[in-house]
Amino acid sequence: PDFRSEQGALARQNELTKPPGSLGMLEEVAIKFAAWQGQVKPQIQLPQCVVFAADHGVVAQGVSAFPQAVTVEMLKNFIAGGAAISVLARFHQMGLTVVNCGTAIPCEYLQGVIHRPVAAGTEDFSLQAAMTNEQAQQALDIGAEIIDQLEVGSDLFIAGEMGIGNTSAATCLAAMILDLPATALVGPGTGVTGENLHHKQQVLAASMRRAKEFVESPLQALEQVGGFELGAIAGAYIRAAQRGIPILVDGFIASTAALLAVQLNEGARDWMLFGHQSAEPGHARVLEALDAEPLLQLNMRLGEGSGAATALTIVKQALALHNEMATFAEASVSGQHLVSEAE
Amino acid sequence: PDFRSEQGALARQNELTKPPGSLGMLEEVAIKFAAWQGQVKPQIQLPQCVVFAADHGVVAQGVSAFPQAVTVEMLKNFIAGGAAISVLARFHQMGLTVVNCGTAIPCEYLQGVIHRPVAAGTEDFSLQAAMTNEQAQQALDIGAEIIDQLEVGSDLFIAGEMGIGNTSAATCLAAMILDLPATALVGPGTGVTGENLHHKQQVLAASMRRAKEFVESPLQALEQVGGFELGAIAGAYIRAAQRGIPILVDGFIASTAALLAVQLNEGARDWMLFGHQSAEPGHARVLEALDAEPLLQLNMRLGEGSGAATALTIVKQALALHNEMATFAEASVSGQHLVSEAE
Repeated sequence: PDFRSEQGALARQNELTKPPGSLGMLEEVAIKFAAWQGQVKPQIQLPQCVVFAADHGVVAQGVSAFPQAVTVEMLKNFIAGGAAISVLARFHQMGLTVVNCGTAIPCEYLQGVIHRPVAAGTEDFSLQAAMTNEQAQQALDIGAEIIDQLEVGSDLFIAGEMGIGNTSAATCLAAMILDLPATALVGPGTGVTGENLHHKQQVLAASMRRAKEFVESPLQALEQVGGFELGAIAGAYIRAAQRGIPILVDGFIASTAALLAVQLNEGARDWMLFGHQSAEPGHARVLEALDAEPLLQLNMRLGEGSGAATALTIVKQALALHNEMATFAEASVSGQHLVSEAE
Repeated sequence: PDFRSEQGALARQNELTKPPGSLGMLEEVAIKFAAWQGQVKPQIQLPQCVVFAADHGVVAQGVSAFPQAVTVEMLKNFIAGGAAISVLARFHQMGLTVVNCGTAIPCEYLQGVIHRPVAAGTEDFSLQAAMTNEQAQQALDIGAEIIDQLEVGSDLFIAGEMGIGNTSAATCLAAMILDLPATALVGPGTGVTGENLHHKQQVLAASMRRAKEFVESPLQALEQVGGFELGAIAGAYIRAAQRGIPILVDGFIASTAALLAVQLNEGARDWMLFGHQSAEPGHARVLEALDAEPLLQLNMRLGEGSGAATALTIVKQALALHNEMATFAEASVSGQHLVSEAE
């Protein structure tokens, strides 16, 4: 981030024809992008969304509302243009890339998907480690590789995820990193309620008890209770930050990957803006740990990058206002005449 | 609103390739527009923003951070394209109309503004009624006339306002209608703080004491402590509802006009969606009285319709998702397999 551009953008905000501060978070967003892009009038011209997909062995325990076949079915839906993130990518003229990080049902025949399967889904982490140390590293590397392959000039990165059972993995991963019980974070995911939710809580609590003794680092937390797409997103965030590409973080699962990324590389946090606060209860805890205040609270809980994509228009409007509004001098508008003694 | 289209839209939402309810408020917005437009796949093609401007005699008491000259200066800025609402209207390709309902400094020479001045600003309502009964009626009529003049096919209405001192008028008007002390609602407006805020509180409390005995109806509240633009917006909301044009309500001042509109014509509420919850403290009380939950909370406090305009993209994305996502059948995606006994 560039301090001089940040100061220039702040000065500009205070000269625009509005009471200082009256655009609230839109002002903060514009100033952030000025610092990120090193220019007083920042622009977003080539936003990119990458959806990372993988399966989770723990679904054998009945922790998800949808069958595992849905992961691959949704990959098809992403590339066919029918999924929520497909619609939002079209709406924003945003690039959409889909990466197979390891589905339970092989899908290498699918064209339009980048195939980097680590394995046919993780192991059932209620019984054993989700993945090996090598697999965890491989997952992180996939994310870095994808960032390196983005079109030159890509100026905003949204990571989405797809993977039946990945709310369970994110819950345990966040709980492990934050040293909280899984019960402090667990929620309905895509729609687990009543008796089934109680069962999910028990499975996750037992998984945490099993895994705890093997975890002394964030990477070991990923190995024990994480997922391939969670690792890939964390790797992508770290590389995006290293390359100076601003990150718009999605909901609970993406934020948990962000938490992992920041544990592995503290500097990654400086390049993150948060799009949407999920209805999933664990998200508030993860956001708190990241000192993050998302732009939107629309009670969404879909994933795929959909919350961040919805927030992209807020960012675009923030920049349009910042760049296009007239200053007091340009518009011959009188400034404030009452400045309180208390200020 | 059309019940059959509403049910059709709800059924469609539950067939789209996502967990039911996972798009949160975006689902509710789409279903509302289906009911409003009488079609299962609603669209917004011709949104309209109208900014109503007027001056306020009470500024003689030093209740605003900006000099009264700013009202006309900002009218020029609106039509020149440099104000926040001008930028947002361009961003959304939304119609922008500016109406002079009565500025203190005459501005009839301004082209591109619709001139309907009721008077050269209201009287100072700390000393006497802001306007006569005839003027209050005239203000309401301006709003209705403007709605009748909107381009055929206009399918969304945003009212904005401009008027130095109108946070004070809205505060007293809302307090009068809600039977609350002005101190329960008063806030900084465009930037009154410290000693000046304390002074504003005293002026508004005194105005309420003076006016109270003359107010037995919502229309009398408008006469005593309102403003021409507040009356015009209320009149516009009522007429928009009568014509079946959905309303996206802006911040504190527009919401206070919405409260007045609903007091005058209860049915107007059915056509309102709320865009943004303002940083102005009185807004929460007004929203509560209207049982309204705005789409955005971005800490904005500018007026001009800017909060509602920012929320317009949320509405557009809600409709794009609703109309363009594939259903489970279309995409051959498996539905939920766990349905809790508790549901």
